[in-house]
Amino acid sequence: MDLKKLVRDIKDFPKEGIVFKDITTILKDPEGLCSSIEQMQASLAGLEFDYIVGPESRGFIYGVPLAYNMRKGFLPVRKEGKLPYRTKSKSYTLEYGTATIEMHEDAISPGDRVVIVDDLLATGGTSRAMVELIEEMGGTVEKLVYLIELEFLEGRSILEGYAVDAVMKY
Amino acid sequence: MDLKKLVRDIKDFPKEGIVFKDITTILKDPEGLCSSIEQMQASLAGLEFDYIVGPESRGFIYGVPLAYNMRKGFLPVRKEGKLPYRTKSKSYTLEYGTATIEMHEDAISPGDRVVIVDDLLATGGTSRAMVELIEEMGGTVEKLVYLIELEFLEGRSILEGYAVDAVMKY
Repeated sequence: MDLKKLVRDIKDFPKEGIVFKDITTILKDPEGLCSSIEQMQASLAGLEFDYIVGPESRGFIYGVPLAYNMRKGFLPVRKEGKLPYRTKSKSYTLEYGTATIEMHEDAISPGDRVVIVDDLLATGGTSRAMVELIEEMGGTVEKLVYLIELEFLEGRSILEGYAVDAVMKY
Repeated sequence: MDLKKLVRDIKDFPKEGIVFKDITTILKDPEGLCSSIEQMQASLAGLEFDYIVGPESRGFIYGVPLAYNMRKGFLPVRKEGKLPYRTKSKSYTLEYGTATIEMHEDAISPGDRVVIVDDLLATGGTSRAMVELIEEMGGTVEKLVYLIELEFLEGRSILEGYAVDAVMKY
């Protein structure tokens, strides 16, 4: 299934000059939802790993069904203050200011092998921060899988040395 | 599977006096994740509907795999300003102040039958706002399904007349 036919371009969102790739039109379509999950899953065929990690909130959309289908656990990454138990955090630089992500301090044990799942690879800032946080906790990142990669933003450049895959590229 | 054994109680989160039911310990366990999804799905067996609606961000965790398993579309409800296309919104009262949720204006067409999925039924404020928003767009709410219901908060009282179910009750 050609998922690009289901992506809706939204001009000037979230700000002027940006063309946002709206995936809610994929999620609404039962065949699109099914195919998008299964095309991401195909990218993980044969890979050995323990957990899927996905960032709030759109990383939850694809991370959970992939974990379910592959009989793995799911570890949420959330914004500061949202996780209820003790956390480890990582701050990173955005275009303006900084952001902080958190995981539970007992989410990952040394030697755990994880796959990061998100809907979009843009500049890669959030993904890079997740990789660093996972590695500080003793885990290894086996692969990063996205539904969409915006290649012109060169997010792969700060993920060099890691396996990166995306279902759709622009 | 007795999922209550996998729920972690967190005292004084998000504020003093509250015992928060942490479900990340369910999500991390492959059998727990699988069983929690399938126990929620069992509650929808035989029900006819078109879409699953889930609110940002924990409603995405269970809404998407249920939609996938049942071959339905998924419609996200998000906080103000997060959805890229034109939206319909609904504001509602919280303990302190108000919150606003949004859906895309073309998410629901008159006659669409939807199921609302979320991890937690507490006071029911967000759920009530979702029901009203869906009905204003011409849809009907066939059922609301939660992983956990905090019965002492009496969320069902503002959802009277609707079918409500939860896998775990406290």
